[in-house]
Amino acid sequence: MIRAGIVGGTGYTGVELLRILALHSEVAVTTVTSRADAGQRVDKLYPSLRGLCDAVFSLPEIDNLAACDVVFFATPNGTAMQMAADLLARGVKVIDLSADFRIKDVAEWEKWYGMQHASPELIVEAVYGLPEVNREAIKQARLIACPGCYPTAVQLGFLPLLENSVVDAQYLIADVKSGVSGAGRKAEISSLMSEAGESFKAYAVAGHRHLPEIRQGLQLATSETVGLTFVPHLTPMIRGIHATLYARLKQDVDLQALFEQRYQNESFADVLPVGSHADTRNVRGSNRCQIAVHQPQGSDTVVVLSVIDNLVKGASGQAVQNMNLLFGLPEQQGLETVALYP
Amino acid sequence: MIRAGIVGGTGYTGVELLRILALHSEVAVTTVTSRADAGQRVDKLYPSLRGLCDAVFSLPEIDNLAACDVVFFATPNGTAMQMAADLLARGVKVIDLSADFRIKDVAEWEKWYGMQHASPELIVEAVYGLPEVNREAIKQARLIACPGCYPTAVQLGFLPLLENSVVDAQYLIADVKSGVSGAGRKAEISSLMSEAGESFKAYAVAGHRHLPEIRQGLQLATSETVGLTFVPHLTPMIRGIHATLYARLKQDVDLQALFEQRYQNESFADVLPVGSHADTRNVRGSNRCQIAVHQPQGSDTVVVLSVIDNLVKGASGQAVQNMNLLFGLPEQQGLETVALYP
Amino acid sequence: MIRAGIVGGTGYTGVELLRILALHSEVAVTTVTSRADAGQRVDKLYPSLRGLCDAVFSLPEIDNLAACDVVFFATPNGTAMQMAADLLARGVKVIDLSADFRIKDVAEWEKWYGMQHASPELIVEAVYGLPEVNREAIKQARLIACPGCYPTAVQLGFLPLLENSVVDAQYLIADVKSGVSGAGRKAEISSLMSEAGESFKAYAVAGHRHLPEIRQGLQLATSETVGLTFVPHLTPMIRGIHATLYARLKQDVDLQALFEQRYQNESFADVLPVGSHADTRNVRGSNRCQIAVHQPQGSDTVVVLSVIDNLVKGASGQAVQNMNLLFGLPEQQGLETVALYP
Amino acid sequence: MIRAGIVGGTGYTGVELLRILALHSEVAVTTVTSRADAGQRVDKLYPSLRGLCDAVFSLPEIDNLAACDVVFFATPNGTAMQMAADLLARGVKVIDLSADFRIKDVAEWEKWYGMQHASPELIVEAVYGLPEVNREAIKQARLIACPGCYPTAVQLGFLPLLENSVVDAQYLIADVKSGVSGAGRKAEISSLMSEAGESFKAYAVAGHRHLPEIRQGLQLATSETVGLTFVPHLTPMIRGIHATLYARLKQDVDLQALFEQRYQNESFADVLPVGSHADTRNVRGSNRCQIAVHQPQGSDTVVVLSVIDNLVKGASGQAVQNMNLLFGLPEQQGLETVALYP
Repeated sequence: MIRAGIVGGTGYTGVELLRILALHSEVAVTTVTSRADAGQRVDKLYPSLRGLCDAVFSLPEIDNLAACDVVFFATPNGTAMQMAADLLARGVKVIDLSADFRIKDVAEWEKWYGMQHASPELIVEAVYGLPEVNREAIKQARLIACPGCYPTAVQLGFLPLLENSVVDAQYLIADVKSGVSGAGRKAEISSLMSEAGESFKAYAVAGHRHLPEIRQGLQLATSETVGLTFVPHLTPMIRGIHATLYARLKQDVDLQALFEQRYQNESFADVLPVGSHADTRNVRGSNRCQIAVHQPQGSDTVVVLSVIDNLVKGASGQAVQNMNLLFGLPEQQGLETVALYP
Repeated sequence: MIRAGIVGGTGYTGVELLRILALHSEVAVTTVTSRADAGQRVDKLYPSLRGLCDAVFSLPEIDNLAACDVVFFATPNGTAMQMAADLLARGVKVIDLSADFRIKDVAEWEKWYGMQHASPELIVEAVYGLPEVNREAIKQARLIACPGCYPTAVQLGFLPLLENSVVDAQYLIADVKSGVSGAGRKAEISSLMSEAGESFKAYAVAGHRHLPEIRQGLQLATSETVGLTFVPHLTPMIRGIHATLYARLKQDVDLQALFEQRYQNESFADVLPVGSHADTRNVRGSNRCQIAVHQPQGSDTVVVLSVIDNLVKGASGQAVQNMNLLFGLPEQQGLETVALYP
Repeated sequence: MIRAGIVGGTGYTGVELLRILALHSEVAVTTVTSRADAGQRVDKLYPSLRGLCDAVFSLPEIDNLAACDVVFFATPNGTAMQMAADLLARGVKVIDLSADFRIKDVAEWEKWYGMQHASPELIVEAVYGLPEVNREAIKQARLIACPGCYPTAVQLGFLPLLENSVVDAQYLIADVKSGVSGAGRKAEISSLMSEAGESFKAYAVAGHRHLPEIRQGLQLATSETVGLTFVPHLTPMIRGIHATLYARLKQDVDLQALFEQRYQNESFADVLPVGSHADTRNVRGSNRCQIAVHQPQGSDTVVVLSVIDNLVKGASGQAVQNMNLLFGLPEQQGLETVALYP
Repeated sequence: MIRAGIVGGTGYTGVELLRILALHSEVAVTTVTSRADAGQRVDKLYPSLRGLCDAVFSLPEIDNLAACDVVFFATPNGTAMQMAADLLARGVKVIDLSADFRIKDVAEWEKWYGMQHASPELIVEAVYGLPEVNREAIKQARLIACPGCYPTAVQLGFLPLLENSVVDAQYLIADVKSGVSGAGRKAEISSLMSEAGESFKAYAVAGHRHLPEIRQGLQLATSETVGLTFVPHLTPMIRGIHATLYARLKQDVDLQALFEQRYQNESFADVLPVGSHADTRNVRGSNRCQIAVHQPQGSDTVVVLSVIDNLVKGASGQAVQNMNLLFGLPEQQGLETVALYP
């Protein structure tokens, strides 16, 4: 059994890890930390876990975590970079769901995240945990930087186009809509149901932190310079991301075949039949990305629809997928759940 | 492997059976019928099942179902009673999720359901599939009448009080709130999101079809005459039932202990700690009923809060729980899912 | 023109007062206070008011308010009782939307609200602002205690029964469901959309602050001792309260006629036709209470359905209705809005 | 008093007309037709209108409508074109909220709407009722073709850019999100709350009927050939449209000033301050379009955010705005409502 620890067990990605790992037959969650709730039973805070999780929240201290085989960081940005080196030194593998190790350019990271990076040397080592791109490197890694939710949906949608050089990389548009759980379990007025319910809005149009992460990922797929406009929106539902992606075709190509070939061996990237639309509900609670590709009215604009559950493929499910790779388990293990429809 | 058939695979209880059985290791769904969609792949209609279900809808004919070990009816009322006798005669066990075999008094059934019963002789044989009451009978049955969603939540909440004769059975109140999936996958104006969203209402206050079913179940638990006021409401969410139950105590009693004892050996009836409230989200997608019991302000009124997912413990999950019992499998098999929170 | 001030202009009852008064032809809102947002334009925070409100938030100080003819307190409990005496002394009428002056028994108030009352002498003078009960007293008042949202819906539903002594007052049940705006514009995790959306729960079953207020109001309507069980619930929508009320009839009576007579001259209490159900959406944004009365299955239990918009008839609309009475204006002025359906 | 008739009074645009006109001091709604509900009181179907509307649904026959000064068609496509000529002949002005007279190219209309046009000669006469473009023509018209909901939000957002030739007209992208009331009050499975709630999807990516209407409107604003990709989405809320518009700038320009100048004299097109985002809730129930303009990261891509309430500025409110113009009333009359927040 793999002994797993979760730092930051009270946020949505933390409890989602607990939900997934509760039924993972090769993993025992031995440590769940929470500074605020230390000493309290996890299932007191999360009655959905009654009978499935005996853990008690402990303090997020290295000694509580060093006996683990792997530690997941489901923490705000800036925490994992403080603790990762110590854990690695004690032989613990680290899977970070926050943004601390995602961006290779330290200065860029510091600009967007507004703080000094505490372990820039680990950024080099960290493997970006998008298995559909980095599977072999992930298997060898000690430290995984799990992709953000927006970046997962956007990259999986754009990659087949960029890798095959069929679109103009300099003029990409990602119009992306997220459910409100993406904002986390934080007491903020803007996330109240009275504020976010029954309303739709864009936010951070001037620049969102996931922009450099997406651009970095796309740039690795093409030799052209990537130009990307990324507009995130908040949609009144709890889970789900829907990316609508626009690019200009440079040549005639069978888009459906291109996408199907790219993902033919992937368990969690599912290209829908020609003419489909992708509903976020069809991946709710599942680790799957569903993708549809269109060329409306025969124009030279390609439109890609890419949906994920932001807490699963966009966070905790992808983290477990990475863990499976790290420990040589079948990639799907513990992730077979069917989406909850309706 | 148990060969299972589903009649009426396009409604919400049908697709929920498919979701649950897709991961049940002892069951293969060999037949899924739909008159309207015969010939079409199931995962075309329900993309959430892609890769998990190869079935094609067939016509609901006996010959298509006779090779099954068990057939689930996820049909409107009035269908199972036409086909059950033929299937039983061919050695197929039948689990009916509709109301056809729930009420023992045929005249009462015909009054509330507005049609003549086609197999009154089978009503006698049918076992009411509430495992927390009828477990042993279920194991021996050929024909199971799965309880309705409201009746499940209300009975599990009231039973400990009635079985122990601690309340006045003549004045029971069940104020119950249901998510909109309880109305089924039917094109009706009242179930449109523009109608049912952002609004709350009672309905059928004059009399709802689940009233006689609940009354029958409660009456079996007590020698007193049961008097019940049942008011169903529609609440703007998709899944979940919350029953708020009121009764007058006849004596001092440790209510918490009473409930805990009653359900101490039950996997799917979970009594919450003293002082708890029961949230429907904590059972969303799970087969569990969570119950909290209160005696507000020290008065003689007991208030029970009982929540289920109407499509799982209120329908398809309970049907699979019954199937497990029928075939001697562990009762929890295929039903271990953790509720989807948030 | 009546010069109106609003203390606490950034909460939901404050902005709702601004919405209503923006179109009230006899009122000019001259002062809106907010400690946190002083100096900022109101329509910066609330773009819905652009072009309709030129006000800038000022500090909540007596000198900023003394030039008003009337001041509304849309503040947390405990603020109005600090400032009301000074304003009254300077000739300003006070309409308090908080709970400070609602309960006549000071000790009871202090128990439920957990603080010492700062102006107990004003409690005697304050008039409980439920026009359907206290219209004449309101017209003469200087200080109005606006009823709470739950108390408004529950009292209007029970009053015809109690005033006419047709039910057993000792065993009343109020099962009430509220939209989430009732929790206010406060950064609390329990009010996040990810927490409150797609879920239903009861809360404060052991005792809610509105219980003594409701009991006081009902007690004034009958010589019998009132016994009340009040269970509030949270329903996943923004606006609306639905009270489902249960009582035991002591005699045969034409319930429909009883209710219609009681409210025949009321603009804002609307008795629906026999057999109706009351939808919260039909009063969304309006100052109306809609009521339906049922006697299910001919039993001796009467069921009353009573709906309001918690921010209008349950708060700011009722406050304006009181203001109209105070200043001799037509009671409906500024409150003619039609509910927003769908 | 203007005598107004409404054909198709049972759909959402019909009842929204009734809501708005109920408080319009210069209009009396004298006729409301509904084939299905003829003979029934309007306020029986719509209890929100109790006390505000005495009308009884009549049959949609010319003789019932000929005494009106103006008739609104709130009907499915294909009805107004059958009746408009007769009404005009009898001196009745016609405001059509359906698509029958919106597209000048008859063949194009017939292709997208799948039927033969019954009055092509009236298409020439019909004035496209977007007051921000056609105000003077509207004042003189007999027959108004009210714009669709998507076209209103998209045109108002793009027009300042096209009229001033600051963007490349050949590569415009409109990523638009609509609440579910846009699908109308029709019993369709895809509009059920269980289907449309808690999910987000694009639809009709291959081609939506509003595409030619938008393209026609944009083309009139520029001498360049317009190339438009239009992707509509369904978002889980009832009211509201949010258009996110993308275009490539051809030159440096003060975008904020450009937009403010364009709409400086408009009551219902409101340009938000620099850096704003536009929330649909801030126009819910109001006739206003709120617009924000951004140039993210200093690139040459301009992003316009444009929001309306699809049932008000996107349908019935705009129809009343047109009526006010037709009859020489102040353009804002009856449309002063403040958006319902929260």
